[in-house]
Order: sequence, then structure tokens, then C-alpha cells
Amino acid sequence: MAFSDSEARARFGTARVGRLGTADLNGQPHLVPVTFVLVADRLAIAIDKKPKSTHNLKRLRNIADNSRVSVLVDHYDDDWSALWWVRIDGVARILEEQESRAPWIRALQDKYEQYLIDEPDGPVIEVTVAHWSSWAYSL
Amino acid sequence: MAFSDSEARARFGTARVGRLGTADLNGQPHLVPVTFVLVADRLAIAIDKKPKSTHNLKRLRNIADNSRVSVLVDHYDDDWSALWWVRIDGVARILEEQESRAPWIRALQDKYEQYLIDEPDGPVIEVTVAHWSSWAYSL
Repeated sequence: MAFSDSEARARFGTARVGRLGTADLNGQPHLVPVTFVLVADRLAIAIDKKPKSTHNLKRLRNIADNSRVSVLVDHYDDDWSALWWVRIDGVARILEEQESRAPWIRALQDKYEQYLIDEPDGPVIEVTVAHWSSWAYSL
Repeated sequence: MAFSDSEARARFGTARVGRLGTADLNGQPHLVPVTFVLVADRLAIAIDKKPKSTHNLKRLRNIADNSRVSVLVDHYDDDWSALWWVRIDGVARILEEQESRAPWIRALQDKYEQYLIDEPDGPVIEVTVAHWSSWAYSL
């Protein structure tokens, strides 16, 4: 069973964490949990200051090679009748310029107060949603 | 910062939910939340009776075309110093025969009592782990 468009969008947009899926040119999928913000049919993921060894991340190299991505939000409960997920498939691009990054950084700061204290300084991954999918055990 | 091998394995193995990433021949990643069981360096995911329209699932079609998969377990908290994830990259195959499915179904039932009441009747996705990755904000 799938949610209505508005319900899917609301559940996805208010989720605190999603999982970003990319794939390299060998078809190897790559998954990482991400904080994100959804505005209309686009979402943004910052490369932030959570400890990383480098900004040269596999997720960015994959997107440079293959812009197709997927982002999943899900809810788990041992009562399986409460399970649900919402997923978007879309096309990603990397924003490096301050002018294109700035509106997304502000939107991310509106959602996550952590970003007010420690503003993300890396590139922003902008995803344009091509397709919504959702599922719930029961509605 | 990464966990020790044993710590990564323990956190992954005891997680109640993971996210399976596959990719199709066009390089489109596909993500779904999954229940799973880990035994040594293999894990299994059942196609179960949680409501689905069909057993002809995108995850199975993708694996038939491209056996490279990734499974992610993560922990989110608004206190970002508590964040962590563990991921495996591996190679998947689809088990359809009862003889190869049965030991995995029992292992899944040991982990999830829900599967005692409602035994999974579909194929089992068996993943052989090729690579472990992990990250924690702080150790």
C-alpha cells in the first residue's frame, strides 16, 4: 500500500535522517545515512563537518560519474504493522559555488539547528526528484 | 573514525533493520529497508509476507542483472556525537530451492519471532560480504 502524494512528501520531508544511494560505473551501490532538507521537488544534502577524512568522498565521485541517485526514509518497529518507507529516485548535481549553496545551507539550518552552530563548508548535493515511491504495511 | 572489526560486526548483526542497495543496468540505485540475519560473513534477507503486490520485485530483478549490493545499518540521534553506521558491500545471489533456503529461514526465525508466526515463503537473498566499512562521530 502506498501513501498519497501529500502524505509521502510530509513523511519524507520531516524525517531527520535518510539514506543516500549512489552507484559507481561498475554498478556497485554505495549507501550512506544523510541529513537533508526537502523543498518542493528538490532536496539538498550538505557535506558537513561531521568527522571525515576528506571531502573527496565516494558519494561525490559516484555522482560525478553517474548522477542517478535514490534517497530512502523509513520507519522500523518490531510491530511490523507499523512499518513504512518513502523513497525518491532522482538526479543529483554537486553545487560548489557559494551563490548556489547559500539558499540550501539556510534551508538546512532551518531544519537542523546543529547547522547554525557549525555551518557546513563542503559542497551541497542537490537532487531533483524524478519519482516518488512509498509503502506501508497498513494504512 | 571506524569501529574495530568485532564491534562493527556486533552492531551490524544485532540491528533490527538495514537498508539494501542494488543497482540496475542503467546505474539507477534502488533502496529498500530490510530485515536480515548475519552469520559469519554472509547475511540473508527473506522475501516475506509483508504486503507486496508481487514477488517479481525490483530488488530481485536488479540482483539477477547485477549481483553487487550494499547493506547499511545506521543509528540517528539529534545529538550528532552519537551517530554511527556500519555498511557491507558484497555479492548477492537468489536462493529459490527449499534446501538452500531452509537454514536461512531458521536463522531469520531465531532473530525475528515474527517469522515463526508467518514463515517467509519467497526467495532468500544471500549476500556474501566482501568488504566492511564503518563510521562513528566519536568512539
